Amino acid sequence: MGEGTFKSIWQNRIIEGMDICLIGAGNLATQLGTALASKGCAFSQVYSRTELSARKLADALNCEAVTQLNQISPRADLYICLLKDDVLPKALPQINFGKGLVVHTAGSLPMRILEAYTSDYGVIYPLQTFSKQRKVDFSEVPFFIEAASPEGLETIRGLVSKLSDIIIPANSDQRQYLHLSAVFANNFVNYLYMVAEDLVNEQGLDPKYLLPLIKETACKVQDLSPRMAQTGPAIRYDTIIIDKQLELLQNHPDWKSLYEIISKGIHQQVQEIY
Amino acid sequence: MGEGTFKSIWQNRIIEGMDICLIGAGNLATQLGTALASKGCAFSQVYSRTELSARKLADALNCEAVTQLNQISPRADLYICLLKDDVLPKALPQINFGKGLVVHTAGSLPMRILEAYTSDYGVIYPLQTFSKQRKVDFSEVPFFIEAASPEGLETIRGLVSKLSDIIIPANSDQRQYLHLSAVFANNFVNYLYMVAEDLVNEQGLDPKYLLPLIKETACKVQDLSPRMAQTGPAIRYDTIIIDKQLELLQNHPDWKSLYEIISKGIHQQVQEIY
Repeated sequence: MGEGTFKSIWQNRIIEGMDICLIGAGNLATQLGTALASKGCAFSQVYSRTELSARKLADALNCEAVTQLNQISPRADLYICLLKDDVLPKALPQINFGKGLVVHTAGSLPMRILEAYTSDYGVIYPLQTFSKQRKVDFSEVPFFIEAASPEGLETIRGLVSKLSDIIIPANSDQRQYLHLSAVFANNFVNYLYMVAEDLVNEQGLDPKYLLPLIKETACKVQDLSPRMAQTGPAIRYDTIIIDKQLELLQNHPDWKSLYEIISKGIHQQVQEIY
Repeated sequence: MGEGTFKSIWQNRIIEGMDICLIGAGNLATQLGTALASKGCAFSQVYSRTELSARKLADALNCEAVTQLNQISPRADLYICLLKDDVLPKALPQINFGKGLVVHTAGSLPMRILEAYTSDYGVIYPLQTFSKQRKVDFSEVPFFIEAASPEGLETIRGLVSKLSDIIIPANSDQRQYLHLSAVFANNFVNYLYMVAEDLVNEQGLDPKYLLPLIKETACKVQDLSPRMAQTGPAIRYDTIIIDKQLELLQNHPDWKSLYEIISKGIHQQVQEIY
């Protein structure tokens, strides 16, 4: 048995022996918690301001539900903070973390916001979108991790490796850009889906007809870079079509501005290749 | 045997007995031509300005390749024009279509551009993105069709039904909005993928880590409307994160403008629901 294998078995035992406290009971907390539980992790408490949410997730994880920050026990080995980015900084001073390792999962918050409240801390940032309606396959999710100490990093890596093999160290600066790029690739893309569906709807046609195109557009870049995958009138900056389409958007000035900026961007992007 | 079944068998024979001429040998021409050939359709000619393209597709379809518009035979039963939107109007006056049915496949060109050149004409518009590298499954593609005569419409419907059951009549006005919405859902979305990948790249991280997010974002709206699927800082117009992210974009003024317009759009879009 090599040293690596021994180390990983040993680490696995430590992680399965840890008491984990989940602070938050939203989409990510629910999916992460139940996935870790299914891999043998043990939870001691779930905190949520909303009693129903706390109880529901705590029941699923077979642990205690608490609704006050001062009810969080200082005896857990690991605290995973999954509160919203604007809520977490205000909650932290009200929690006694004892000697536990504390991690947060927020893309745009630096690791150091945890510094004042515990000696060992870090970040687990899964680059994916989570919603109540859909179960995410964690084995395909890239996890970006960061920690204040090498020991903390190994514990975080051991925990995350129960779910995914895609584990990448990234510092707080890198992570805020990862979050920004996720806003473009997810939130903003989803907004364009809405614009497209509204335009089809306004013509009395069913927006569901856009779904195969939406799917193929995402599938295409799985093996082709977006630059190489680009098509459409903006590539050649075909002014006849572009002017016609801008006219069609005259009742939607914001979409018209978007159309202009992105078309110029596409034209420029393609010129960079050729 | 019902009248409908009889009619469809009869129509099927007519379509399989037709001589089809493909004008164009690009991505759509190649995929449409080979798919129709595999369903028993017969081709007489393929035209392309580029000899290699014409010959390659003509060989696959077991028919003649021509590279001059005046070499196109006037004896075909059906002409499918697949030239680029800016090329087609200039090519039409140079072609003798005889008594054939002429269709084009351009989203933003009205059907009536064919009027001066033939008595029977129409449009076949598949709402999908086509590229050399990827084979599209036509059975999932929505085809929007239009024709000048009821007979023309039935022939077009019969032809298209060999590939897909999703056939929707749409007039030229509707079709230009369909094309516009495809530009948003495909070309513009793909541009945002590029922005996201560039941002990750600039941090020395591999942009491939965005792919699961890109895929899940497209999968999510397959059963949830984009309005309901929306997440992220713009929903609550979280000014702390938004201002921080705008700062990260200071070296990319165009992406910053995009960020501002889309964030406001998302905030507004979500307020419309609640």
